Amino acid sequence: MSEAPHLTFDLDTAGVSTGHLIVPKGADCEALSLPVFSCNKGEGQSLLITGGNHGNELEGPIVARRLIEWLPEAQTCGRVIIVPELNPLAVQAWTRNTPVDGKNLNRVFPGRADGSVTERIANAVSRLLLPRVETVFDLHSFSPTWDFPPAVITHPIADADLMAKTLKMAEAFKLPVTLLWEYDDTPGMFDTLAHSQGKVFICAEFGGGTVGAEALAIYEAGVRNALIALGLVGGEAEYPTFQQQKSGQTLETLSSDILRSPARGIFEPRCSMLDEVKQGDLIGVLHSMESLSANSIAICAPATSIVCAVRSGLHVEADEEIVYLARPLNL
Amino acid sequence: MSEAPHLTFDLDTAGVSTGHLIVPKGADCEALSLPVFSCNKGEGQSLLITGGNHGNELEGPIVARRLIEWLPEAQTCGRVIIVPELNPLAVQAWTRNTPVDGKNLNRVFPGRADGSVTERIANAVSRLLLPRVETVFDLHSFSPTWDFPPAVITHPIADADLMAKTLKMAEAFKLPVTLLWEYDDTPGMFDTLAHSQGKVFICAEFGGGTVGAEALAIYEAGVRNALIALGLVGGEAEYPTFQQQKSGQTLETLSSDILRSPARGIFEPRCSMLDEVKQGDLIGVLHSMESLSANSIAICAPATSIVCAVRSGLHVEADEEIVYLARPLNL
Repeated sequence: MSEAPHLTFDLDTAGVSTGHLIVPKGADCEALSLPVFSCNKGEGQSLLITGGNHGNELEGPIVARRLIEWLPEAQTCGRVIIVPELNPLAVQAWTRNTPVDGKNLNRVFPGRADGSVTERIANAVSRLLLPRVETVFDLHSFSPTWDFPPAVITHPIADADLMAKTLKMAEAFKLPVTLLWEYDDTPGMFDTLAHSQGKVFICAEFGGGTVGAEALAIYEAGVRNALIALGLVGGEAEYPTFQQQKSGQTLETLSSDILRSPARGIFEPRCSMLDEVKQGDLIGVLHSMESLSANSIAICAPATSIVCAVRSGLHVEADEEIVYLARPLNL
Repeated sequence: MSEAPHLTFDLDTAGVSTGHLIVPKGADCEALSLPVFSCNKGEGQSLLITGGNHGNELEGPIVARRLIEWLPEAQTCGRVIIVPELNPLAVQAWTRNTPVDGKNLNRVFPGRADGSVTERIANAVSRLLLPRVETVFDLHSFSPTWDFPPAVITHPIADADLMAKTLKMAEAFKLPVTLLWEYDDTPGMFDTLAHSQGKVFICAEFGGGTVGAEALAIYEAGVRNALIALGLVGGEAEYPTFQQQKSGQTLETLSSDILRSPARGIFEPRCSMLDEVKQGDLIGVLHSMESLSANSIAICAPATSIVCAVRSGLHVEADEEIVYLARPLNL
């Protein structure tokens, strides 16, 4: 094993500092230098903001850059650490996973010092940044091949107090949707590690499709709202305008709310995100690629619900996820 | 060389027929069976509609499927041939080019009977379908990583009569934008082959990003309008609603209107499609991935113009295309 992961500057320096988190080299890859920003204004909440955990979700890195521009003036107390691109190798390749080792950074936490490069990134973040903060905002996007509203997501947390604190923090973003998402594939997630240490971890999921100027403005407004709620900056929180409305709703989606493709073929969406659908409503069609005389398969809503996410029209295999339904959360 | 490309049915059969265009096998790939629809209602215009020329542009295949559902009732005369997926291998892989040979189908026309699979597809289409029609609608999308309005595109054509006929046909779609796009990389395009035979060739470019229900409805309306203009179906053409408006504009973009990234880094869009910008307006920012203290580069509009296409926020190399500007066409 070569050198240990380290920071090129002292996070306890007062005021604004920038430098790098060094992820040591290994057999698979040279050392990485992840740019890190720190704004340290004394007593108050401590927050880590990360983007680029998945390399094809670029709202996070861009919103993080914008925060770095205005936080030095705006922040009145506490500590904020920002890493715009947790996984620069994946960002450069516009891939979810790291091209070098094929691993999903958000499934290898807390990482390993002697692991492959993805595991070494997780290890460096877990050892040097996570211990310094009480709260984490990890800025994701849903996916380039899904339509999804600007949202903050949290998975169910066994600790009821932490669950309540996390939902309250999530709602403070005032994004159009706050989603409690039942999800099984949680081992190795950054969320899971932070939760196990009693930290509030917020996963902002900033829509899908392309990353455009309007969406970025909404996302930045959401993070500003959350910083106001934490008392780190001043101002009044307000709902950003989305689809001509200023409002938010808290939804729940269960594993059984995910609709999957009944066969392979071309998925045609017939609904849009945030549509309200009744049992039996047509929400998509699956077309055979092999023949035009084969009947297309209608995909209908199994129950009255709200469309939370819709897959882009594209070729899917049998059993691929195509629609997430949801309903208002009743705790 | 094995068997010749052929159709499994007779295109001259009256009424509706479906079958396959067989692209012979080669050393690289088994024979392909491309589903083909034909609706033959006697005298009148003859039209070929193709989708899936590029495999990550799925509006075309889906709109083609929808046409196949209502044309048998709606078509009153003439001949329409539809091939929803010209390149099924690329569609299944969600890639622009064919995975088997890495080739761009829209750069190998008229193809070769003894070439690789992409060339064999082009050869089969050029020999068996193109000779049967006077007009072609090739249904593309701009790209999953660009924001772009629903549009019909044509490149400049040397033959002034054909240029005028093509522009008139393009405007008959009544999509939000009709674009005359100066473009150099035309050898091997399906367009170029059709133009050389004096045919009207329309390239619908159906927006970018995800393929959603609203966008599909607009595109279908555009193709219906064009079919009305050709006299193949009845009804009244009208502009579909896009961004709360029912209108269309004809624009021109020159090679010099393409803005390219000044360096590698993360591109942040600061404008949206169809924005009107003045000289000096900020339309994007390029952020360094290496350091947070390096200044970001502002990208400004070189002249008063209309934003025609904007790249999604993502990592770009130096000199990659990031914005297309345009202006009203003055012929």
